[in-house]
Amino acid sequence: MAADITESVPVSPWWGWAPATAGGVLPEGARKVLGERLGIDPNAQVAGPPPEVTAADLPDSTLTDDALGALAGAAATGTVSQDPADRMQHAAGKHTPDLIRQREARPLAVPDAVVSVGATSEVRDILAACLAHDIAVVPFGGGSSVVGGVTPLRGGHASVIALDLTRLNALIELNETDRTATFEPGIRGPEIEHALAARGFTLGHIPQSHQQATLGGYAATRSAGQASTGYGAIAELITGITLETPSGPLVLGGRAPASAAGPDLKHLVIGSEGTIGVITEVTVAISRRVTEKTYGAWAFSSFEAGAAAIRALAQDGAKGDLPDVCRLSDEEETELTLAQSDGTPVRLLRRWLSSRGIDTPALLLGVWEGTDADTKRRHKRAAKILKAHGAVSATTSPAQAWDRGRFSSPRLRDELLTIGVMVDTLETAATWSKLAETHTAVAEAIRGALAGGPGGSEAKPAAVQGHISHVYRDGASLYYTFIAAAEDDMVAQYERVKAAANAAILAQGATITHHHAVGTEHAAMLPAEIGELGVRVLRAVKQELDPAGIMNPGKLV
Amino acid sequence: MAADITESVPVSPWWGWAPATAGGVLPEGARKVLGERLGIDPNAQVAGPPPEVTAADLPDSTLTDDALGALAGAAATGTVSQDPADRMQHAAGKHTPDLIRQREARPLAVPDAVVSVGATSEVRDILAACLAHDIAVVPFGGGSSVVGGVTPLRGGHASVIALDLTRLNALIELNETDRTATFEPGIRGPEIEHALAARGFTLGHIPQSHQQATLGGYAATRSAGQASTGYGAIAELITGITLETPSGPLVLGGRAPASAAGPDLKHLVIGSEGTIGVITEVTVAISRRVTEKTYGAWAFSSFEAGAAAIRALAQDGAKGDLPDVCRLSDEEETELTLAQSDGTPVRLLRRWLSSRGIDTPALLLGVWEGTDADTKRRHKRAAKILKAHGAVSATTSPAQAWDRGRFSSPRLRDELLTIGVMVDTLETAATWSKLAETHTAVAEAIRGALAGGPGGSEAKPAAVQGHISHVYRDGASLYYTFIAAAEDDMVAQYERVKAAANAAILAQGATITHHHAVGTEHAAMLPAEIGELGVRVLRAVKQELDPAGIMNPGKLV
Repeated sequence: MAADITESVPVSPWWGWAPATAGGVLPEGARKVLGERLGIDPNAQVAGPPPEVTAADLPDSTLTDDALGALAGAAATGTVSQDPADRMQHAAGKHTPDLIRQREARPLAVPDAVVSVGATSEVRDILAACLAHDIAVVPFGGGSSVVGGVTPLRGGHASVIALDLTRLNALIELNETDRTATFEPGIRGPEIEHALAARGFTLGHIPQSHQQATLGGYAATRSAGQASTGYGAIAELITGITLETPSGPLVLGGRAPASAAGPDLKHLVIGSEGTIGVITEVTVAISRRVTEKTYGAWAFSSFEAGAAAIRALAQDGAKGDLPDVCRLSDEEETELTLAQSDGTPVRLLRRWLSSRGIDTPALLLGVWEGTDADTKRRHKRAAKILKAHGAVSATTSPAQAWDRGRFSSPRLRDELLTIGVMVDTLETAATWSKLAETHTAVAEAIRGALAGGPGGSEAKPAAVQGHISHVYRDGASLYYTFIAAAEDDMVAQYERVKAAANAAILAQGATITHHHAVGTEHAAMLPAEIGELGVRVLRAVKQELDPAGIMNPGKLV
Repeated sequence: MAADITESVPVSPWWGWAPATAGGVLPEGARKVLGERLGIDPNAQVAGPPPEVTAADLPDSTLTDDALGALAGAAATGTVSQDPADRMQHAAGKHTPDLIRQREARPLAVPDAVVSVGATSEVRDILAACLAHDIAVVPFGGGSSVVGGVTPLRGGHASVIALDLTRLNALIELNETDRTATFEPGIRGPEIEHALAARGFTLGHIPQSHQQATLGGYAATRSAGQASTGYGAIAELITGITLETPSGPLVLGGRAPASAAGPDLKHLVIGSEGTIGVITEVTVAISRRVTEKTYGAWAFSSFEAGAAAIRALAQDGAKGDLPDVCRLSDEEETELTLAQSDGTPVRLLRRWLSSRGIDTPALLLGVWEGTDADTKRRHKRAAKILKAHGAVSATTSPAQAWDRGRFSSPRLRDELLTIGVMVDTLETAATWSKLAETHTAVAEAIRGALAGGPGGSEAKPAAVQGHISHVYRDGASLYYTFIAAAEDDMVAQYERVKAAANAAILAQGATITHHHAVGTEHAAMLPAEIGELGVRVLRAVKQELDPAGIMNPGKLV
């Protein structure tokens, strides 16, 4: 059974990803492998759940009664809350260092209030009230940012609010003729799919954050989903977008499928991360609901050989041959995946691959989605090209297991942190001609950073695994998971890894982020990516749309 | 035989499209039909070729010796010319009113000098010299703009130069691994295809202006080609772009196939029409060279029925089923096409369609391009879907005739102007749900404008024909050709039509241009398209990159 993409789950707790009732999702096989690899007791509980938070734990709100009154008046059908639980819930996204700090009850910025918007039409008045009372505004959707995108920074203003948009979750229009749907910005992934499924459609944008993230957040962060190889990333799916800025509304696109009427300003809003305004409406291309899935799995003699095969498929296959989901694990990730299972199928697979000369396999998973037997035809044609490039058929059970557990990894992070394991992911993308080198350089940088403990202390055992998750004609993404026994200062340990990885990424000329966005985490690297002049252009746009600088200070630029 | 897309032709003369040696390209059948329809003598020569231009005919250059010296110093390996022929050659693009004015020897703005750039590295110094001497700069590629995009307006500056980029025509790098090619900006369409064909590749971006236009111009105008339904428009093909601005260089993209590092600034450069800087380098995605073409032609009972069938193919066909070239003529265009041929095949076609109940057919032409028999498979699957939606097979000879004559229409304009026929094209795009209504409204607006002669005079006979030329999942483009016996003031006649068409387009909520760009022609309509705030954003970007406002004044914003 594939995971149900229309199924809503409870909202994440403030200290992690999993609902408070969850726990124990780490499979026994994974627990065993981690214990061996990291030299830890995988059943120990090093860090308990974080303590309850009361008003006494939080800094006083700096909002004056006047300001609170103005916000309440503007958010006529919404709410303005200074409740400690609400403030904590909006104090951070799911950035690992923030979660670690929260678990350790370290001081963390919190918003002075949470304004929950009841109607799109109120956003304009709320921004006006914030301008009048010198209040910074952090648009807040699913709160799933892993790059500090919703950190409530004041940016020199008197106060800061989180603007919660999740009550704006309506399907405004489904236009079957245009094959588009217009939504309010705060609708979450499962709600999108639920609303579309009822009419026989899908968006097909399913990032790992799907169960929490919102459509406005997808747009604001230039998101890519797990099936974006097939459906396109959010920037390709958005046909129209409305942004409410402190300078007024921007209504872009929606008139025509394409236009030469000057630069396409939609692309200034997509990826703007809340720094120029609040996205209030998004129109997206939709597809017929998926009724058929064909899974495929192949092994290659190396990650590099697998990448070359995928490249051939992307460049010389017919349109549609590429699977909608396309993931190639490197040798280390493949080994860790296989090691978690002691079963007979894996033993047989290892033996079969070994007989074909593959002892350190790199595993490729593919999912072809569609509405009919066409998925089988696409799979068959792809298999022919892949085999011509050294692919050896493997069991599809890992592909099906991936589809079942596709939303579970963020929950594993919670549990690993609990048992004293520092874990996180980072990602980049590169053109094919520098992909293999970039992969090696980044993985080595992470390993090197983990090996070099603080103050010359002994290095903790670690595992670093990578995969390609998004495939293009001219290149692919690279996604890394790093897992290590926690040092005393886990935040410092994390930051050491990120600094090393970022340096390697920039040295290779790759992008600092393929789909995690910039936030506070990558802002310092943006000039290296788009140049100082590029940053000046973004600042000029911000200056025009948000001259007072109240929108999401400290992010992006 | 399809037209050879690698074949270079002589540069257009300053007064029209055709090389001076051409002439008589109007087929006999077309000549006959036009004579009948428009009530003119199609063999009369009303307007001869325009007179020669001498220095005495042109305004004196306002460039000082100092300014000329600075330009010459900056364009070290280039040239600075004040020759009357050079100035006239760069006085206008191929905007019909400009061509009419030139034929009538009406006063026209001309650049004070033409600076031909010899090396990309010189652009920066040239811009510095222009800043120092208050000189406006009009980047000039193929000069094929039909919207006044290269009109040499001073914009309040002391002088204006045309910056001719056509000597910058090198293939800088062909990266077979990434399947991308990097070119200098001034390379023309046939030169691009010639360079790529030698290595087995194609860009697949073939607008009607292909033989004259340059890659930098494609990028600057957000161009779409005749096969963009298959290959994607230029905005989708560009993976990296470099812009030299008065504030410095912007180097965008090229690091990775996709990125979430903030807004995609490439899309601010694509469509910027020379108003923020000079494009100096473009990297594009390339495809395997086409070796197979499969042609298809079908008739529908009406344009609307044909549009519905194409929509079904675009939305529910498998990827690749849509033909790379996809053109659906309305009933009037189909009739004019058929009327130009008295041959037996057309008589048989009419009889066959009539037997199927189709008396006023709308003809669909498709070309499936590729590298092998896959084109036949795609064609077959598409035919099945089209037939399920009322398509009746027709002879493919019109599709093949289109492919042979795909670059000839602009030459016909020259000849028609000569025989006293006012002719031009205009275009828009709309979402499917408003496509039929938009088509009717725009065609009616054009007909109405042509029917209402100046000062209540009797209307001249006219023909107005339309077609869909670019197909998307959410809509399609609409392209119109209007032909009428010339009034005394052809420019006024033209402007009456354009004003009526623009008003209809905006009233329908469609885009003011799908692929002709903004230039001077559509600048007044841009606020209706992207909002006053959208225009302010473009101005803010221009202010940052071109604070003195020397770049292509009067265009876009």
